[in-house]
Amino acid sequence: MKIILDMMGSDDGAKATTEGAVMALREYGEEYVLVGDEKQIKAVLRELGEENNPKLQIVHTDEVVTMEDDPNAPVRTKKNSSMAVALSMLAKGEGDAVVSAGSTGAFLTGATLIVKRIRGIRRAALTPIVPNAKSGSVLIDCGANVECTSENLYQFAFMGSLYAEHYMGINKPRIALINNGAEETKGTEVYVETHKLLKEAHNNGEINFVGNVEGRDVPQGVCDVIVADGFTGNILLKTIEGVAMFFMNEFKAILNETMLTKVAGAIVKPGMRALKHRMDYTEIGGAPLLGISKPCVKAHGSSNAKAFKSAIKQAILYANSGTIEKIAEKLGK
Amino acid sequence: MKIILDMMGSDDGAKATTEGAVMALREYGEEYVLVGDEKQIKAVLRELGEENNPKLQIVHTDEVVTMEDDPNAPVRTKKNSSMAVALSMLAKGEGDAVVSAGSTGAFLTGATLIVKRIRGIRRAALTPIVPNAKSGSVLIDCGANVECTSENLYQFAFMGSLYAEHYMGINKPRIALINNGAEETKGTEVYVETHKLLKEAHNNGEINFVGNVEGRDVPQGVCDVIVADGFTGNILLKTIEGVAMFFMNEFKAILNETMLTKVAGAIVKPGMRALKHRMDYTEIGGAPLLGISKPCVKAHGSSNAKAFKSAIKQAILYANSGTIEKIAEKLGK
Repeated sequence: MKIILDMMGSDDGAKATTEGAVMALREYGEEYVLVGDEKQIKAVLRELGEENNPKLQIVHTDEVVTMEDDPNAPVRTKKNSSMAVALSMLAKGEGDAVVSAGSTGAFLTGATLIVKRIRGIRRAALTPIVPNAKSGSVLIDCGANVECTSENLYQFAFMGSLYAEHYMGINKPRIALINNGAEETKGTEVYVETHKLLKEAHNNGEINFVGNVEGRDVPQGVCDVIVADGFTGNILLKTIEGVAMFFMNEFKAILNETMLTKVAGAIVKPGMRALKHRMDYTEIGGAPLLGISKPCVKAHGSSNAKAFKSAIKQAILYANSGTIEKIAEKLGK
Repeated sequence: MKIILDMMGSDDGAKATTEGAVMALREYGEEYVLVGDEKQIKAVLRELGEENNPKLQIVHTDEVVTMEDDPNAPVRTKKNSSMAVALSMLAKGEGDAVVSAGSTGAFLTGATLIVKRIRGIRRAALTPIVPNAKSGSVLIDCGANVECTSENLYQFAFMGSLYAEHYMGINKPRIALINNGAEETKGTEVYVETHKLLKEAHNNGEINFVGNVEGRDVPQGVCDVIVADGFTGNILLKTIEGVAMFFMNEFKAILNETMLTKVAGAIVKPGMRALKHRMDYTEIGGAPLLGISKPCVKAHGSSNAKAFKSAIKQAILYANSGTIEKIAEKLGK
């Protein structure tokens, strides 16, 4: 498999992405197309002694889509950016998947207009896995679409279900709709309507819809897929991240208070490390754009090398999972 | 001051509420009107030896608004419910504030139609204080209004600011708009428009608007007031609760793993207790309905006696804070 990498999306240029690409090559094999500033990329490859590795092909670009750029930049003002070139190569079949740590909006727009959606899918959705007490839940959408119709959310539910089934290997994934209460009358008009549609689909045996889920229950892992509009999903995801960070810091502070608590800290270190590991986004790394006709995976904007490597792993597994084909089969027209 | 209490809202009938009322009387003094099932209330008062306390007046009702009831129940089908009678007494001036642990929707509708809003306020908002690294942030709204216009959110910002100033004693409260990103172009149309309005108000020196806040930053206490529609605010609040509970349980489990970690647990017990205390909703207890012309405070639905007592304390402080008068002065027509 050949993975096309947008090397310039990450906050610190090509350094973390190049290191991540080399880590991925060494761990997973496969071939990689490194799209970005050749000079920067070569410098890092040289450090790592991978300068002449035939499995690492460089495609030079000198434009970069920044976080400040308009989402249309890849298709309008910055057609020669690393992001736009990477997506165009994927569209032309010059690789099997794209990974980018660049602007979510630009990546979504670029993927939608250059790689194109699966026919019949109205909106592509950014779909991370949210850590929880169990094995984590798929969150669809987490920011690609701030305004959603009930039809959008309905399609998200099906795409999320197929992703959980074929990517995570969950049998009959439990689909839940984020809401401000358990009752089916809860939420905005769009959510009430979506609940109706999903209940029908459940009764027709199409998906395993378990009803609404409240923010309080999300961390317990009561469902495998959380359906949300991008605005709500983004706030949900970042709040979980923020509160998790807050508590890890509070615990650290408690364990550092006195000599004695430091002893306690040493005792619980393995348990704390395991907990931190479970909550660590760098372990998950990225989120695919479900609904796009070829694998496009968004890596966390502040990705370090390890997070970018994890996003590459996710792209490989996602491409191999057959999820896209299943979505086309089930929802495609 | 005379506080009118809806004794039947809580999940376990009049027990927790009566105990909470007695705790409040003993701690804060004041007078109380206990509206609900006289038999149940008297039984608990007898246990507590407060059967004949003149400061605890009982008004008997035999109807109860349940969580399943339509929000219009207090003004339509259940005009003789403890909630409806309590609100009517407040409207008639037979007390200075109402506290209820009943259905949020019914309490909001009842307060709006029986006690009435401050003239010029379009929507009343449920306004809890969210615990964080600092002294907590006011969250307005957390569930009273699932669909909001930018005008509603604009009024919430002003009401929240006046509440933070006069109830919490914060000088120039930092007002933030919950959003899926920091940039002013982020969010739904309603949020983009609201950002514009709040920026204008800030530039006119009317409020201290610090911009958008992301879920990630909320626990750090970067602002004093979080403005949100009720749908988003509810999910934000419950997610914070849920993740907090999750981490406290995870940490407890780590401390219970082995004999040795139990020793560590004993060492950090004071620190853990302090953290739990800071995160404990029963310490805060309730949330006022900002925008209603007289003090109406919603206690947590699953309030124990202590939480109900805290809600009563909040009602007393809220009534004394002059917040309602300030809102009428600033936004009233």
